[in-house]
Amino acid sequence: MVLQQHDDAAWLRRAVELAAHGPAADPNPRVGAVVLDAAGELAGEGWHQGAGTPHAEVMALRAAGGQARGGTAYVSLEPCSHEGRTPACTGALLDAGVRRVVFAAADPSPEASGGSDVLREHGVDVVGPVSGTGSEQLNQPWAYAAVHGRPCVTWKVGATLDGRVAAADGSSRWITGDAARADVHRLRATAGAILVGTGTVLADDPSLTVRDADDRVVGAQPLRVVMGERDIPADARVNGPGELVHLRTHEPAEVLKSLQDKQIRHVWLEGGPTVAAAFVRAGLVDEVLVYLAPTLLGDGPSLVGSLGVPTLAAAHHLELDDVVQLGQDVRLRLRPRPVEGAH
Amino acid sequence: MVLQQHDDAAWLRRAVELAAHGPAADPNPRVGAVVLDAAGELAGEGWHQGAGTPHAEVMALRAAGGQARGGTAYVSLEPCSHEGRTPACTGALLDAGVRRVVFAAADPSPEASGGSDVLREHGVDVVGPVSGTGSEQLNQPWAYAAVHGRPCVTWKVGATLDGRVAAADGSSRWITGDAARADVHRLRATAGAILVGTGTVLADDPSLTVRDADDRVVGAQPLRVVMGERDIPADARVNGPGELVHLRTHEPAEVLKSLQDKQIRHVWLEGGPTVAAAFVRAGLVDEVLVYLAPTLLGDGPSLVGSLGVPTLAAAHHLELDDVVQLGQDVRLRLRPRPVEGAH
Repeated sequence: MVLQQHDDAAWLRRAVELAAHGPAADPNPRVGAVVLDAAGELAGEGWHQGAGTPHAEVMALRAAGGQARGGTAYVSLEPCSHEGRTPACTGALLDAGVRRVVFAAADPSPEASGGSDVLREHGVDVVGPVSGTGSEQLNQPWAYAAVHGRPCVTWKVGATLDGRVAAADGSSRWITGDAARADVHRLRATAGAILVGTGTVLADDPSLTVRDADDRVVGAQPLRVVMGERDIPADARVNGPGELVHLRTHEPAEVLKSLQDKQIRHVWLEGGPTVAAAFVRAGLVDEVLVYLAPTLLGDGPSLVGSLGVPTLAAAHHLELDDVVQLGQDVRLRLRPRPVEGAH
Repeated sequence: MVLQQHDDAAWLRRAVELAAHGPAADPNPRVGAVVLDAAGELAGEGWHQGAGTPHAEVMALRAAGGQARGGTAYVSLEPCSHEGRTPACTGALLDAGVRRVVFAAADPSPEASGGSDVLREHGVDVVGPVSGTGSEQLNQPWAYAAVHGRPCVTWKVGATLDGRVAAADGSSRWITGDAARADVHRLRATAGAILVGTGTVLADDPSLTVRDADDRVVGAQPLRVVMGERDIPADARVNGPGELVHLRTHEPAEVLKSLQDKQIRHVWLEGGPTVAAAFVRAGLVDEVLVYLAPTLLGDGPSLVGSLGVPTLAAAHHLELDDVVQLGQDVRLRLRPRPVEGAH
């Protein structure tokens, strides 16, 4: 059987492939698992389908049944040793009599890590973490939130070449073209929450939904979050179907704390200049996506409000990750420049 | 002899290759010529080395001497029929007894075009224009100026992600990095003039020279042009070695008329927001090069001043030609969007 030719790396890649079937915006990481029997034959596969459902290892062990005994489990993430809404995966693997566990990414979360130690203590042969499988890339915001205790923040902004997010009269639909908007909706769908300020709600009345090219709301929707002390009009589009959270504060750290408590791992920040400036000044932006349209306005609000920067040497520096053309627009993806001396 | 294997297209390509040796920022187009003798053997080559020196055809005919009689001339641009500082090339080709002329680009200039008709009237077998040789690309600003009666204008601006060209205190050196600056100097060297307003001279004291990576002035220098009614301080860097023209006007069309009279074909506009806005509003920008640094300032002057645009629908639209990453910066190259219905 051709599957017997697979080596550890290939089975791990398969586990990562399975992991990618999971929901991107979930509170839990995306994890896939493959179980081989004692003879090295494929016995079961599984992936995690979202918070509250069984973990990938449990799904694969269920599929394998008794064949798991004496076999090997390949998991895209270190098995958890944590009893949450579901039992710890280490227990399930031990109960099933798995002899060997190979995993890709280590679990960085304080409450769930240490699974490989638990398995070793029980005599299981454990290999991992194994890098280069792509597992980390699947779960970046989740891992970020696990390590930093707050959601990862992507600030998205669409602007003209001269950095304007609206014209002098406030009109802003649409600065960018169809390809850029489609890209925004595709990426929005991977976030746990979309965040704007009350200013944006009052000025633009956005619906903060993930929509398709025909402007139909599609798929699982991120949580809609509005920050700021002003009231949201009853007829605002954000009051449409779906959950809305209004956080009556101007404090970015407080907003992120609330969202961390709500199990949000990735916040998609679409606020106007004031909210964007508050996050930049607080050092709470982890990724920047700037969509630039090939237009000039000359007047109108800038993409970011005052940062309290008096001189060029004090500018906020970012690292350019990549730049792509989307129709007639350009998308720049950037990250904060690492602090000198930090790892 | 292997050269006899060449066909017309290959000899034309050779003529274009020779043309590229000419100076890019010259008032005259870059032209190359190849002369074959009556037997089809290479007899002479030449290219135009700049205004006031012999044209490419004359150079190649000189090299060919008596061998040109009954032969073929390949020229990257239609031979001129115009007696300027040098005699018309049609006359030189007829005097040399050339039997056949093959040329690439047609001459669009009112005073010099019609050369192929003159040759035909004298019994010469004329083939051309032949497209796809790259000759047009060599002489775009020159052809533009010939057709429109004014120099071609490239507006170059370096800005932060939020479209700022300086910080709140006016500091602006250097917003962009080494790779972007090297690109600017490389492209600056192809322009006939560098233009700024008095505001930029007073605020930034630029030298407006083409410099190498070690900041040394290198090669032929574009004409330095300052527009605006304020005086230029005696100790300003633009008063350094080389020619300086101060045009005491705020009117872009008037500036371009003066530069056209000075045989400038390509103006490199590096003005600040006020001068840039004046050119954009007048519709006198033909190419835009925006160098964006991955930084945020939040305050400071924007890359373009007020354009009198009240609402998004009235924004100035450009076409994106290309976008390239230069170190940590990004260069966008754009052109005005063609007017609907125009060719």
